[in-house]
Amino acid sequence: MRLLVGKVAGKQAVFAVEGENAVNLTEAVPEVGSDLMAMIGDTAVLEKAAEAAKGAKTVSVSDILPALPVSRPPTIICLGLNYTDHIKEGGYEVPDYPALFMRGQQSIMAAGQPMVRPTCSEKLDYEAELMIIVGTGGRHISEANALDHVFGYTVFNDGSVRDYQRKTHQWTPGKNFDDTGAIGPFVVTPDDLPLGASGLKIESRVGDEILQSSNTGNMIWSVAQTIATISEYTTLQPGDHIAMGTPPGVGHAKKPHPRWLKPGEVVEIEIEGIGVCASPIVDEAEFATQAVGQ
Amino acid sequence: MRLLVGKVAGKQAVFAVEGENAVNLTEAVPEVGSDLMAMIGDTAVLEKAAEAAKGAKTVSVSDILPALPVSRPPTIICLGLNYTDHIKEGGYEVPDYPALFMRGQQSIMAAGQPMVRPTCSEKLDYEAELMIIVGTGGRHISEANALDHVFGYTVFNDGSVRDYQRKTHQWTPGKNFDDTGAIGPFVVTPDDLPLGASGLKIESRVGDEILQSSNTGNMIWSVAQTIATISEYTTLQPGDHIAMGTPPGVGHAKKPHPRWLKPGEVVEIEIEGIGVCASPIVDEAEFATQAVGQ
Repeated sequence: MRLLVGKVAGKQAVFAVEGENAVNLTEAVPEVGSDLMAMIGDTAVLEKAAEAAKGAKTVSVSDILPALPVSRPPTIICLGLNYTDHIKEGGYEVPDYPALFMRGQQSIMAAGQPMVRPTCSEKLDYEAELMIIVGTGGRHISEANALDHVFGYTVFNDGSVRDYQRKTHQWTPGKNFDDTGAIGPFVVTPDDLPLGASGLKIESRVGDEILQSSNTGNMIWSVAQTIATISEYTTLQPGDHIAMGTPPGVGHAKKPHPRWLKPGEVVEIEIEGIGVCASPIVDEAEFATQAVGQ
Repeated sequence: MRLLVGKVAGKQAVFAVEGENAVNLTEAVPEVGSDLMAMIGDTAVLEKAAEAAKGAKTVSVSDILPALPVSRPPTIICLGLNYTDHIKEGGYEVPDYPALFMRGQQSIMAAGQPMVRPTCSEKLDYEAELMIIVGTGGRHISEANALDHVFGYTVFNDGSVRDYQRKTHQWTPGKNFDDTGAIGPFVVTPDDLPLGASGLKIESRVGDEILQSSNTGNMIWSVAQTIATISEYTTLQPGDHIAMGTPPGVGHAKKPHPRWLKPGEVVEIEIEGIGVCASPIVDEAEFATQAVGQ
């Protein structure tokens, strides 16, 4: 099932998407609520909504303004280095444990919303990533059972301010600028994708310029291994987000010059079978004076 | 004002503490709610509660089972290296920007609750830290105005699993084991402490064994500088927690042998004028079979 959280006429709801058409699940079954959390917490709600929505009237997907799939993800954990060639272009060694960092709520926004280049830096970079939305939580999840804990997959642009990322050995500041991490718009449940969302083409681009092009099959740590590794130290919660790292081709490693994102550009991340996450780049000064509804 | 969130007879409330006595502010003014968030969001609530509580009957502080001051802090940001001598004992250079990392909700617990040594590691370490609880949020807060954004100060034990902290250059796993970060129990408002909570003795100990002993005046980045630095990249939210880093004397740097925390010990962190945060160390296997009320 392909899900989309978004607004029509200012009212936020969860939609089930088929091609260009979407059914309003929240209208069909009010307990669905305004984002995916109710479904994540109780798959019976998802099933009931899917059933109730059969044959219901549809709206056009293009009339829906995407919102965050989960309005407030409890935790956002990100793998830093998960594609061998990207590790080399960053000057790192291939590690035997994933580099893990966290992003806060303020750093994320829905697909389609502005990605904000801060006033203090011009080094805003894109990172195409597969993102897991955790369904059933748990601790000490085995690799064998890990995929049962996935609610769905979405697209993530792990927007990074590179000079602030490398102010110290800890990447937190550069990964946590307000409105730099784009999520969505579609969340696809595992039954509609290959096992562990492996083997999917993943790409980032600005217009016709292809910036990154790889395949989720090239990830060092699979989705199942990653869930097992993280749940060794923390109890994953329903609705947690896990970003799976980015392939080669990021802007700061481009030769002969880095390729930073510029205001006026629209950066797109596409993952085969999931969708396109597009973000217009906007300068912080301009963003602050806009009324951006989300 | 000295505040304490905790339970009496299973019912959680906010208390104002004077010596050994506490007034139940939640009973006096129901809009206070069951943790500090209502007061943080609206200082009028705090003032009204303080007024209403005057002359009210008191309970003994020792009858209150501490709970987290803020049940779900929006974000927990930690400084890694903020005392020169601790930086040297860890083998790091003194940086010109603070090393910042984040802890998730699952990693924290109230003072008095078990600090859990995980099954996968014996390298559980203590870190005595001053913790800021953010009052009014904001972005681009100047150093000059930063202290106006502090709701209060509390005590933090930034419990760390050292081998997992250094699995890679990113410290996240070792700083995010479930139930390793102890917060509280008292939150003291700025009017009852020196400016920026500077000049306070800070200590960690197990029984008579003094493990760390320093002064918050030895911090490289002050509270005001830290708020300014962090708010350059993110909009601080009311209720966010900022941990200010730890002084020298952590267990992994002790000579001739590291000094890890062991089940059965009780580790105490004390900050002058704020209070003592005590945590009994419990093995994960034992913890999992206990019914721990919080």
